[in-house]
Amino acid sequence: MRPESSTEAEQVRNIVDRLGYKLILAKMDVKAFAESQKLSQEEAARILRYRFLFQQAKLKDAQAVAVGHTADDQVETVLMHLLRGAGLSGLKGMSYRSLTNEWSQEIALVRPLLGFWRDEIMDYVAKRNFQPILDASNQDTQFFRNKLRHDLIPYLENYNPKLRQLIWRTAEILKEDYNIIDNTITSAWQICILDENERYIAIDPQCLKGQPLGVQRNLLRRAIFKLRPGIRDVDFNTINRAVQFLGSPSKNSQLDLTAGLRLLLEEKKLWLTSWEAALPNQDWPQLDLGTELGLHIPGKVNLANGWQLIAKNVSNAKFQKRQAITNDDPFQVWIDFDCLRLPIQIRTRQSGDRFQPFGLKGHSKKISDLMVDLKIPQRARAGWPLLCSDEQIVWVPGIQLAYPYRIKDKTINITHLKLKRG
Amino acid sequence: MRPESSTEAEQVRNIVDRLGYKLILAKMDVKAFAESQKLSQEEAARILRYRFLFQQAKLKDAQAVAVGHTADDQVETVLMHLLRGAGLSGLKGMSYRSLTNEWSQEIALVRPLLGFWRDEIMDYVAKRNFQPILDASNQDTQFFRNKLRHDLIPYLENYNPKLRQLIWRTAEILKEDYNIIDNTITSAWQICILDENERYIAIDPQCLKGQPLGVQRNLLRRAIFKLRPGIRDVDFNTINRAVQFLGSPSKNSQLDLTAGLRLLLEEKKLWLTSWEAALPNQDWPQLDLGTELGLHIPGKVNLANGWQLIAKNVSNAKFQKRQAITNDDPFQVWIDFDCLRLPIQIRTRQSGDRFQPFGLKGHSKKISDLMVDLKIPQRARAGWPLLCSDEQIVWVPGIQLAYPYRIKDKTINITHLKLKRG
Repeated sequence: MRPESSTEAEQVRNIVDRLGYKLILAKMDVKAFAESQKLSQEEAARILRYRFLFQQAKLKDAQAVAVGHTADDQVETVLMHLLRGAGLSGLKGMSYRSLTNEWSQEIALVRPLLGFWRDEIMDYVAKRNFQPILDASNQDTQFFRNKLRHDLIPYLENYNPKLRQLIWRTAEILKEDYNIIDNTITSAWQICILDENERYIAIDPQCLKGQPLGVQRNLLRRAIFKLRPGIRDVDFNTINRAVQFLGSPSKNSQLDLTAGLRLLLEEKKLWLTSWEAALPNQDWPQLDLGTELGLHIPGKVNLANGWQLIAKNVSNAKFQKRQAITNDDPFQVWIDFDCLRLPIQIRTRQSGDRFQPFGLKGHSKKISDLMVDLKIPQRARAGWPLLCSDEQIVWVPGIQLAYPYRIKDKTINITHLKLKRG
Repeated sequence: MRPESSTEAEQVRNIVDRLGYKLILAKMDVKAFAESQKLSQEEAARILRYRFLFQQAKLKDAQAVAVGHTADDQVETVLMHLLRGAGLSGLKGMSYRSLTNEWSQEIALVRPLLGFWRDEIMDYVAKRNFQPILDASNQDTQFFRNKLRHDLIPYLENYNPKLRQLIWRTAEILKEDYNIIDNTITSAWQICILDENERYIAIDPQCLKGQPLGVQRNLLRRAIFKLRPGIRDVDFNTINRAVQFLGSPSKNSQLDLTAGLRLLLEEKKLWLTSWEAALPNQDWPQLDLGTELGLHIPGKVNLANGWQLIAKNVSNAKFQKRQAITNDDPFQVWIDFDCLRLPIQIRTRQSGDRFQPFGLKGHSKKISDLMVDLKIPQRARAGWPLLCSDEQIVWVPGIQLAYPYRIKDKTINITHLKLKRG
């Protein structure tokens, strides 16, 4: 990026050789990387630099990567975040030690000079007659950070000559405040997160809704960072959209969130996941796609996720007694045995599948429409088990019995079907 | 403060009369108040204004005082706090509704216009042909806030044209973050605060030390605001001094904190109190100053705070058996009955009191020095009960027995003295 960088690298090599240390040098095409990733050159250089450092640290089994940020850099970082509208996580600035950080879960990023002002360091360097290499691009005010350094901070010092110290100290206080919030979020995480891995995080929506707004926001922020440790910041609008989505009444809806992540709101789970990730279906009865099973009466059949379908004949007396109790389990049904051709076939839906829902008394409806109407989660529809007899759909478990198979006055033999989870 | 204010008041009266409302007008000497209180005129006017408003609200049994702060005022407030080095409690800006506030515990301070920009309000006013009264002093950039409004914010908008919206939104987020911290402090308060009233707050120092640094800071800040609801802000150095003092090893030391408050660190209590407040002495045996009691053997005497002094004779056998167990209760002692002249006198210290501590084997020491050495809390020293016989000090309960009264080989009759709390 700068023509003088090779000469500078040689100067560094001389120093390192004299001290008996080892220098590892790498050359990378920042411009190409910036273009391909649609990043500013500054940001592209930052990413390549840190990737290289952490890659080397890993190779050498190092415990930490040390970088030279000063107290002045801290002040600039805080102001930069303020001007970009970051919340507390930005305003608290950089840390002396970060683990985990956006580059590694194992190797710490340390900033031993964060408590020293640039002037103090330059004094130290001058007193010892060191010959520092000064990066001329630090003077170039076309870079946002440099403009801040050379224009904004001197301007703000007209308002308060102690501005830099104040901002630095504010970051120190906010860091501790942020720790309190972080602890609170860790507690909320333990009760609200149902399942998590590197592909998805399943949140209990009722639990999250019961938390204070600040906890909701920070928990969602943490969830995003868990799945996307590399992203630098999550802006307010993203978090706000997520919070609003959580409160939306529509079930099985999705929201394109940020960085290739979506939110999927189901009755009992709010999923944060990448678009391409396959989510587990263990909450519902499912059949492996393309398989077909036969069910005898009496008989049992095992489905995926520990679900079992049980069929048995019951006496009319027992049925009458049972009917007196309201059937609030959508996964059991009583049907007219003599309308069935055995064995009952269990299969997944096929295009054009229709059936006559009990509630519509003879009118037929498309299975796919019914699934939408009755809010079967979209990702569970393809594997949903359908019970058929003679190519006719008898029962869509969890939803409706087909009208022709209902118990009639003249019904003689009654079959009880029940789907249950082991 | 402004020559035009009387004319303006008349204009307001006309409007109010036309609407059929009532105007209450007051005139105050801001300059004199500013001088007497050593405040800026701006700050003095603010205090007099709010005092008047809340005083009137109380007289009229009003539920709230409404003021006209706009979204622009919010942005200015946040930036002002940033430039003055406030932490989260400043950066979160003003609230739509504050109860309690620095003026009242019962009457809310509400800011219904906080979500509207000044431009929106001026548009509204123009569309309805209202004739607003504009305060010319709002243009005067000698006031810090006006300088911010007319110089700083336009300057910062060069860096980010959406700056005002960003800062406003940041305040909204920080308010929710602050709520999380506030809830955490409320929980910590319940376990760390031993006693509180309007004169003092007693904190369990071990409990407070066990909290994260951010909790320590915010809890101490809350304690200060509880005793001094009127103060506008507590700066970082004050809080930091308090936290450092909490960690100091010296017992019974004091720290002049802020706003006439001191911290007093005792073995089991950290007191935050005004300098002049008398603290309760209920933790120690105390005698009302100037009283003198007589103790017979066997006998009992009641002291203040539920303490009781009990004397009885014990057999040598029982004493020998008891001695086999280490006496780790400094409030009991065995003495040579035959050295005593009865009744034992119980009195408080007198100037020049000396005695021969058991540990020094015959050498005498000033009672006052001994109390300092053995860390008797300063405020408990004057009322500390001393047991005397024939004007000689026999025992300083909690500290030392006098050497001449010890059990010797030739001792025949043994007296057991015990001080206990009911």
